[in-house]
Amino acid sequence: MAGLGEEELFNALASIVGGKCVSMVERDREVYSRDMWPRLLIRRRQGGEIEHLPHAIVWPESEREVAAVVRLANKLGMAIIPYGGGSGVCGGAVPLRGGITIDMKRMDAIQSISREELVTDVQAGANGERFERELRAKGYTLGHFPSSIYCSTVGGWLACRAAGQLSTKYGKIEDRVVGLTFVTGKGQVIQTDEFARARRGPDWTQLIVGSEGTLGIITSARLRISPAPEITILRGFAFESVEEGTRAIRKVMQRGLRPAVVRLYDEVDTFINHVSVFESHSEEALETSGLCPWPEKGAGALPVLPSSEGDVPGTPPRARKGMGDKALRLGRRLGSRIKQGATAAALTRPKLVNSTFGALANSISKSGCKMIIGLEGPRLRTEVEAQLTFAALERAGGTDEGEEPGLKWLAHRYAVSYKMSPMFREGGFVDTMEVASTWERLPDLYESVKKAIGAHAVVMAHFSHAYADGCSIYFSFAGRADGLLETQNTYDAIWRDGLAAATRVGGTISHHHGIGLLKGQAMHGEHREAMTLFRALKNTFDPNNTMNPGKMGLPLHGEMKVL
Amino acid sequence: MAGLGEEELFNALASIVGGKCVSMVERDREVYSRDMWPRLLIRRRQGGEIEHLPHAIVWPESEREVAAVVRLANKLGMAIIPYGGGSGVCGGAVPLRGGITIDMKRMDAIQSISREELVTDVQAGANGERFERELRAKGYTLGHFPSSIYCSTVGGWLACRAAGQLSTKYGKIEDRVVGLTFVTGKGQVIQTDEFARARRGPDWTQLIVGSEGTLGIITSARLRISPAPEITILRGFAFESVEEGTRAIRKVMQRGLRPAVVRLYDEVDTFINHVSVFESHSEEALETSGLCPWPEKGAGALPVLPSSEGDVPGTPPRARKGMGDKALRLGRRLGSRIKQGATAAALTRPKLVNSTFGALANSISKSGCKMIIGLEGPRLRTEVEAQLTFAALERAGGTDEGEEPGLKWLAHRYAVSYKMSPMFREGGFVDTMEVASTWERLPDLYESVKKAIGAHAVVMAHFSHAYADGCSIYFSFAGRADGLLETQNTYDAIWRDGLAAATRVGGTISHHHGIGLLKGQAMHGEHREAMTLFRALKNTFDPNNTMNPGKMGLPLHGEMKVL
Repeated sequence: MAGLGEEELFNALASIVGGKCVSMVERDREVYSRDMWPRLLIRRRQGGEIEHLPHAIVWPESEREVAAVVRLANKLGMAIIPYGGGSGVCGGAVPLRGGITIDMKRMDAIQSISREELVTDVQAGANGERFERELRAKGYTLGHFPSSIYCSTVGGWLACRAAGQLSTKYGKIEDRVVGLTFVTGKGQVIQTDEFARARRGPDWTQLIVGSEGTLGIITSARLRISPAPEITILRGFAFESVEEGTRAIRKVMQRGLRPAVVRLYDEVDTFINHVSVFESHSEEALETSGLCPWPEKGAGALPVLPSSEGDVPGTPPRARKGMGDKALRLGRRLGSRIKQGATAAALTRPKLVNSTFGALANSISKSGCKMIIGLEGPRLRTEVEAQLTFAALERAGGTDEGEEPGLKWLAHRYAVSYKMSPMFREGGFVDTMEVASTWERLPDLYESVKKAIGAHAVVMAHFSHAYADGCSIYFSFAGRADGLLETQNTYDAIWRDGLAAATRVGGTISHHHGIGLLKGQAMHGEHREAMTLFRALKNTFDPNNTMNPGKMGLPLHGEMKVL
Repeated sequence: MAGLGEEELFNALASIVGGKCVSMVERDREVYSRDMWPRLLIRRRQGGEIEHLPHAIVWPESEREVAAVVRLANKLGMAIIPYGGGSGVCGGAVPLRGGITIDMKRMDAIQSISREELVTDVQAGANGERFERELRAKGYTLGHFPSSIYCSTVGGWLACRAAGQLSTKYGKIEDRVVGLTFVTGKGQVIQTDEFARARRGPDWTQLIVGSEGTLGIITSARLRISPAPEITILRGFAFESVEEGTRAIRKVMQRGLRPAVVRLYDEVDTFINHVSVFESHSEEALETSGLCPWPEKGAGALPVLPSSEGDVPGTPPRARKGMGDKALRLGRRLGSRIKQGATAAALTRPKLVNSTFGALANSISKSGCKMIIGLEGPRLRTEVEAQLTFAALERAGGTDEGEEPGLKWLAHRYAVSYKMSPMFREGGFVDTMEVASTWERLPDLYESVKKAIGAHAVVMAHFSHAYADGCSIYFSFAGRADGLLETQNTYDAIWRDGLAAATRVGGTISHHHGIGLLKGQAMHGEHREAMTLFRALKNTFDPNNTMNPGKMGLPLHGEMKVL
């Protein structure tokens, strides 16, 4: 802290944001020591000490205050950690060098909603769910529905190029942003284009989007909104295999049809979802986890969970066409054991469990992969497009399973984020790896990453966020080992091997969760020469390496060395 | 040239690209002294001396050669001017400090067309029309149809964020690009993401797109393609006023309908088009102009102009509803006089001509503004969308004028680029100014810029390239003064006043022609603090200011000074 005492630091910060909006107390520093990165949750559950604490947390209320704090940090040689909802899953908000965490949640105003241009101006700290709710009340939607929507912010979305569940229609958050205001690592306030289509010269909006706080802090954004949909049409389909299902998605996308959501679950994910392995009461999970720190001011933005009527214990799984009774009973028993806390034995033998699930899934002779598909928008056009889409899926081998699977998905669509806690309580862990590639490489990517993860953990996957040129794969995995050190090693091995497999077959290391600390090393393998660009940009925006140091594969210490 | 003699420079370049692919002869240097910037055409027609000549021109055939030439230029302290089709209209290819012009047209391979991903890999020097023709032969389209398509290149499009006539459906070229290979100002070869949706971290593709050769040279690109449309539906509509017509476009766009093309001509543009002021035989115009230098190797890519059957002299203009005979006769006489070379008198009194045309246009009691609208794509969906679109236009006050105006536009859609020559021969000039803004500011932008230009030249406008949040306005103007100096002063005054008016009302200075030399000063008024970003980027990509110096508002001489 450049020789500055604690009191002097507090006073210096208080002179900028006011004494009530600075904290240096232990409890707050602990809360802000991490985000939702599972590796940190493992440490917390298993009694590992906290490795990195911020020196102070501030809650500024204006760009001017943010800029002043950044300039102070530069003067003191301290780091700045931008902080939104704290819902990131890659360690992006971990204060590796200590420093000052800037929590943006007081800057949460929806400044304007323009009927004339279909855009909205919103501050970076705005909570996702409240923001969408207020847009809906006026007849609009942002169309951005990440499963973290109850505890993530607009600034966080932009910082890591987030995708919502309906991204296939509305685009990722980067496709919704028209312009930004942000504070550079030098403390300058910069406003980028407010009318994106007026683009001339390099696009600096898209330079800041995705930089995860390493170049500056986003303080507000202008985003595109759409008229709220008149109708939503949801449907379940079943396919024989991943190959058949992904080919069907590709055909739909390449014909220019734009479903809002397409999710194809692989055989194991389909199977597991039927026996509800990870099922638990969402409310309980959330209470227990104590995650997602939200300040008192944000009380109105506290998570309001979606209805969970489908979660009632004892509800029998729907019988599945062609699925043998024996396989169903075996699967149900295995799933049930895992669910009842008997996870330890299962998860320490991941290869066995994977092959058992695999065999069970294969024993389902037909319709092994479920798909959820939904379209929304103006009535007539959506109806026409739905008919064309469903017909295309049937032609591609899909079996229409009616509306119910879609409605069930919709009712629980945010629940997954709150279902992680019990597994950590049991000494295990759950995490997700979202990779992506072109259609051509997708089968390779799927098999390679599944195999790499499967050596260490129980793994399943679904395909979502589809494009004309490719698709994302979302792997979910659960693992366990004995003791903190061993568990961490297992966790690290999964990511090391999984990302290496993705890079090897030309897939990418992230689709919408960002890079953070978790995938920093893998950035080099993926970007190669282009990483010199990133270092060069870092050097110009943030020459003292003040902003979120050590993330995204950039150095932790010292000034930036270029090329 | 750092003390290097001509022969030494030639030999140094020849050792990289081979002696046949270097030229230092006067005639070539003159050809490469300019692009299609009208200010330079004025000078040429009126005997002004050439102000800036390159020292040498090279035609490399690989990235490796491009990189070696850039490194040589760095060593010699010489500038590099990237050159595509030479069809730019802002002076972006003018060698302000001399140096080495790198003509990319030998690097014109279409490297792959992927059915699996709907993408194509193409080298930067590929000619637009040939590229689209080859895609069509395989059942695809890029969807990018600039009026310069016969004499512009893929690299040039990307360098200036070009828009094609069907951009409302297919997007600007920046929306079609998945990844790039480019050579930085230091001579490094960088490949950006090849699967755009895998985006993580800053988007360096969009950083290079639009940089007009100031940061590096684009050598190849991966672009999205679409299935060739099954049908195209074209229609003419008439609206009472610009206000009514633009409101109708906004409604269509905000309902999520996506016509491929929408063009609304203001009263004067509608009127002038009826009396064919700028009509001339396209072939003749092109021959006369001697513009668009294309190397012999590209013979197969020589402009093949669209049929011009509508251009037959004596074809009477269609009678217009509600248009008085007297007004029509007066307008026809005025237009005809201008057409027959009697432009001098008219164009030196622009305010009078503007007010006369304005009055004539206003005397047309109804349906004063024509609109061309077209949709294309798969049969069923396009038919449904066309019905919804046409119904929305009628509800918004439009009168359906049938298919003919649309077909006529289609037949002549590239002709405008080749109609400039006669006006220059007469000692006058023609140019276009494409600005853009949000819907809210659009009326202000239209009136302000029209007034600013109208003080110096005869002016008309059409609205095209529409978005949910705003629209571009394309002003066409023709002027004349006595002698070169006075003509240049008039020309400069138009741009100074026009761009200042655009900036004043919150419009932008360019939509798709780029910045070049012409709009460099206006960059500062428009971008304000964000220009510090651009200078910083320039400093990191091109610290010796080798790449296209003096363009886009960046300094001409010396190394870059940052912030």
